[in-house]
Amino acid sequence: MVRARKLGRRAARIESGRFLAEGPQAVREALASGLVLEVFVTPEGEHRHPDLVQLALERGQQLLDVDEKTFSSLCDTVNPQGLAAVARIPQVTLADAIGEHARLVVVLVEARDPGNVGTIIRIADAAGADAVVLTADSVDPFNAKSVRASAGSIFHLPVACGISLADLSGQLREVGLATVAAAGEADRSVFDPSVTALLANPMAWLFGNEAHGLSQPALDLCSITLRVPIYGGAESLNLAAAAAVCIYASATAQRSPAS
Amino acid sequence: MVRARKLGRRAARIESGRFLAEGPQAVREALASGLVLEVFVTPEGEHRHPDLVQLALERGQQLLDVDEKTFSSLCDTVNPQGLAAVARIPQVTLADAIGEHARLVVVLVEARDPGNVGTIIRIADAAGADAVVLTADSVDPFNAKSVRASAGSIFHLPVACGISLADLSGQLREVGLATVAAAGEADRSVFDPSVTALLANPMAWLFGNEAHGLSQPALDLCSITLRVPIYGGAESLNLAAAAAVCIYASATAQRSPAS
Repeated sequence: MVRARKLGRRAARIESGRFLAEGPQAVREALASGLVLEVFVTPEGEHRHPDLVQLALERGQQLLDVDEKTFSSLCDTVNPQGLAAVARIPQVTLADAIGEHARLVVVLVEARDPGNVGTIIRIADAAGADAVVLTADSVDPFNAKSVRASAGSIFHLPVACGISLADLSGQLREVGLATVAAAGEADRSVFDPSVTALLANPMAWLFGNEAHGLSQPALDLCSITLRVPIYGGAESLNLAAAAAVCIYASATAQRSPAS
Repeated sequence: MVRARKLGRRAARIESGRFLAEGPQAVREALASGLVLEVFVTPEGEHRHPDLVQLALERGQQLLDVDEKTFSSLCDTVNPQGLAAVARIPQVTLADAIGEHARLVVVLVEARDPGNVGTIIRIADAAGADAVVLTADSVDPFNAKSVRASAGSIFHLPVACGISLADLSGQLREVGLATVAAAGEADRSVFDPSVTALLANPMAWLFGNEAHGLSQPALDLCSITLRVPIYGGAESLNLAAAAAVCIYASATAQRSPAS
């Protein structure tokens, strides 16, 4: 219990190789992933989610009954509905994430907002991307806020963390993925008909920091830079909205009859 | 000051017709909009943003010097950088928002998360939409969280609030806008080539509640229902990500040479 409570801290997650999945949706996906080590449940959680308690028991999981107060001290979420699971952090190498058959990879460089990171993992999963890669200076995607924003998607696709730009560059070149930078100041639009063929090929999208975008070394990795066009008065889009538009542009191009 | 502090409450915003714009970006856009009634500034705010202080003075605004502690009690934001403005809530009728020349309108039905509402106002602005309409049962877009998430966009385009579905239906019919529902369970994809022509025409997108989507009466208003396709393991996209994909699909179709 004390150990589980410490998983709110990044150092404890790294040291133990564990993280906390809060709420019924995350617990369901965690159980399906086979990564669960123990499940905490309150009387309310047992009452509201008998199907999940049953599933945990069927999988031979250790169920730990806790009271509401203890449970609240464990969780970051305001309303986790009395269920949380301690799960192993999957150890994903860059080669695991970006293998020879990858067609769509999402790379986050210096992403700092855990909500954005979780939301983009969810978008990548929805769009059928093969993997998400986070550079070493990004926020931890196993942070409670990010896990929650991913809505279970963190259990669905490989997420490689702590990757250097040099290693990323080498791996992308080795498997022959085109690298495309998303940048507000790019000349060409992601909707430009001339880039559809490129987006239809196996590729990696690179997205930068929420405040200052992609660093020059990250831009230097990319063969082309594209923007989501701004037609109105907004200065920019937020990172997750821009990522949704870009990732779906590729996912659609890769599935269109012409490609 | 006491009145300004009360603007954190919806009832006070409605009664006074005022809201609070926090931070340098929002204050800049508020000043440009001509809606500002008074500006609060701390010594730090004056030091960090002399350009905005100058702009406020040039516009004949009343500048109220406050200390950090008083300022913090006024603001919802953790780091508003010592600047906030009280602004008039623009009174936007449905006819103002959806006039004869509207080509792209975003309608939020029962939207409950202020962060989502502000983010979607920013997306609508970025995509060059003519207006955003919120039904009567939606969250107040002049809530501090929503204003912050809009990143200034709430000052850029008309936002009509508290609209009934009956009035909305009448106005959309009167100006001849096609109505398209975004719904995860729709048969047709927003990327289906057969719907591009429809999206290129003047139209309104309807988006539903974060948890349960569009209500039946709202669906009944729409001539077609489209989904953002889910290619991977995610159950759904979050509302703002789905809205970004849908709104940009229309904005792009409306600007493509074929349309």
